[in-house]
Amino acid sequence: MLGIIAGGGDLPRAVAQAARDGGRAVFVVCLTGSVTEDWAADFPHAWCGIGEPGRVVKALSGAGAADVLLAGKVDRPKFSELKLDARGVLLLPKVIAAARQGDDALLRFLAGFFRDAGFRPVGVAQAAPGLVCGEGPVGRLQPDENHRRDIARAFAIVKALGALDVGQAAAVCEGLALAVEAAEGTDAMIARIGTLREALRGTAQKKRGVLVKALKPTQDALTDMPVVGVSTVRGAAAVHLAGIAVQAGGALILDRAGVAAEADRLGLFVTGVALGG
Amino acid sequence: MLGIIAGGGDLPRAVAQAARDGGRAVFVVCLTGSVTEDWAADFPHAWCGIGEPGRVVKALSGAGAADVLLAGKVDRPKFSELKLDARGVLLLPKVIAAARQGDDALLRFLAGFFRDAGFRPVGVAQAAPGLVCGEGPVGRLQPDENHRRDIARAFAIVKALGALDVGQAAAVCEGLALAVEAAEGTDAMIARIGTLREALRGTAQKKRGVLVKALKPTQDALTDMPVVGVSTVRGAAAVHLAGIAVQAGGALILDRAGVAAEADRLGLFVTGVALGG
Repeated sequence: MLGIIAGGGDLPRAVAQAARDGGRAVFVVCLTGSVTEDWAADFPHAWCGIGEPGRVVKALSGAGAADVLLAGKVDRPKFSELKLDARGVLLLPKVIAAARQGDDALLRFLAGFFRDAGFRPVGVAQAAPGLVCGEGPVGRLQPDENHRRDIARAFAIVKALGALDVGQAAAVCEGLALAVEAAEGTDAMIARIGTLREALRGTAQKKRGVLVKALKPTQDALTDMPVVGVSTVRGAAAVHLAGIAVQAGGALILDRAGVAAEADRLGLFVTGVALGG
Repeated sequence: MLGIIAGGGDLPRAVAQAARDGGRAVFVVCLTGSVTEDWAADFPHAWCGIGEPGRVVKALSGAGAADVLLAGKVDRPKFSELKLDARGVLLLPKVIAAARQGDDALLRFLAGFFRDAGFRPVGVAQAAPGLVCGEGPVGRLQPDENHRRDIARAFAIVKALGALDVGQAAAVCEGLALAVEAAEGTDAMIARIGTLREALRGTAQKKRGVLVKALKPTQDALTDMPVVGVSTVRGAAAVHLAGIAVQAGGALILDRAGVAAEADRLGLFVTGVALGG
C-alpha cells in the first residue's frame, strides 16, 4: 500500500493515478487548505491539517500504508493560524528550524519524521516512474543550435541557484538571462517575461528564448521534481518562448500526450536533455 | 578633462556633479534615446546615437577629454532601427558578439574600444569616490541578528548569480529567497515581492526581509556598480522589507543625505557590509 500525502497542484493526483494504473493500492491523505479539488474522492482517503502529524500517521497506519510519498505544493502557513495536534506541538520547533533552511531542508526533515514513524519514504520516480522525462523531444519540434546554447546557459544558472535552494527554473534568450525563479514560482516567473521590452524577448512574430527546469543539486529522490504540464506549455507560448527543456531523469512530464499535442499546436519544443553530473 | 558617456537613470548626472564638485572639468556625451532628461544642459555636452561611435570619439577628442567613463543604462537596441555611422558599421558585428555574452562582456568590449581610440577608461569609483558606499549604516537603523543571517544568504545568492552575469540583487526573508534579479532590473524585482503571499514576506504591521545588492564577481572597476538611491529605499519600504544591505566598496549611494533621511522616515536600515574576497 502506497500512502500519498497530497499538497496542492496536479502532481499528487497524477502520481496516485499512475501508481494505481501500475497495479498498486493507494491511500491519499489530503492536506486541508492545500488540496483545493476533491479528486481524492476517487481513492480511499482522509483529510488532515498540516499541523496534525499525529492524525496523518494514524490515518496511514490504519490504511496499512508501508510506503509514504510527499507530493504537491504546501503553503508555509501562518503559525498563528495553525491547528496543532499533540504531536504537532512537539514537532513545531523543529519544523520551524528546518523551514528556515529552505524547502528542501523542510522536506528532508518530514521524510525523516515518517521514517522514524515506521514508514518507508519514497519519491515520485520510484512510485510512478512513467512520469519521469527521458532524453529527447516530447513533441514534434526540436531545439536548434542557438536554442541549445541558451539551454546550456539556463541549466548553468539553475544549477547555481539550486545549489543555494533558491529555485528550479530560469529563462534565457540569446545569452541574456530573462528571468530566474525564486519564491514566486515558475508560472509567475514565466508570465513576467511578457513585461520585458520586446527587444529582449520573443514576439508574436518570432518566438525566442528557452525555459529550463532542473533538479536542484541539493534535492534527493524523495523531494518534488520540477514538473512540466500542459499549463507550462501554454504559459511559455503566451510569452513567445521558443521552447522548454528539462533535465532528463530529473523532471516530470504530467500528461505527456497532452503536453506533446499542445506543444505541437502552439509551435514550441519540449525536450529532455541529459546533463553530466 | 573627464568625458562621461551617459546612458539613462540618475547615475551619470550624479557622477558628473560629483566630479565637477571635486574640481574636474567634465564633458558629457548623452546617448540619444537613453538620456531622457536634459540635465546635461548644465555641462558642456553633445548628443550621439549608440550606433555612432565615430561621432562619440570625435566629440570627446574635440572637448579634450583624456579619461572616459561609461555610466547609466543603455537599452539593447533593435538592430534594425539602429542609425550607424561608418565606424558603427565596422564595429557592429563585434558588438553583437560581445552582447551575446552578457552586459559585462559588452562593457568590457566598449572600454577596449575607447582605450584603442586613445582614451583612458575610468570607473565611477575613480572619478567620483564619494559615491561609493563604505562599511556601516547610512541612516539611523541597523540590521539585527536575523537580518544579518538573511543578508549573508542574499549575498551568497547574488555572488552565485553574478558569477554567471545574471543580476546584482536578491531579497531574502527568514531564509527564503523571495526574489532574484535578472533582466527585469532591481525596481521590478523589488515590486513583485508585494505580490507574494503575506505569510512569506513583511506587511504594513511588521517589516520583514532584506534586499541585497553587490558587485558581480565578473565586474571590474570600469563597469557600473550597483546603485542605491532614494527611489530604492521607497521601493523596498513599499513591499515592507526591513532594510537594504550593499557590499561596502562595491556599490554606490546616490544622494547619501537623502537616502539616510528617507530610510529613517520609513523605518528601514541601509547599510554597507564588508564581504570577504
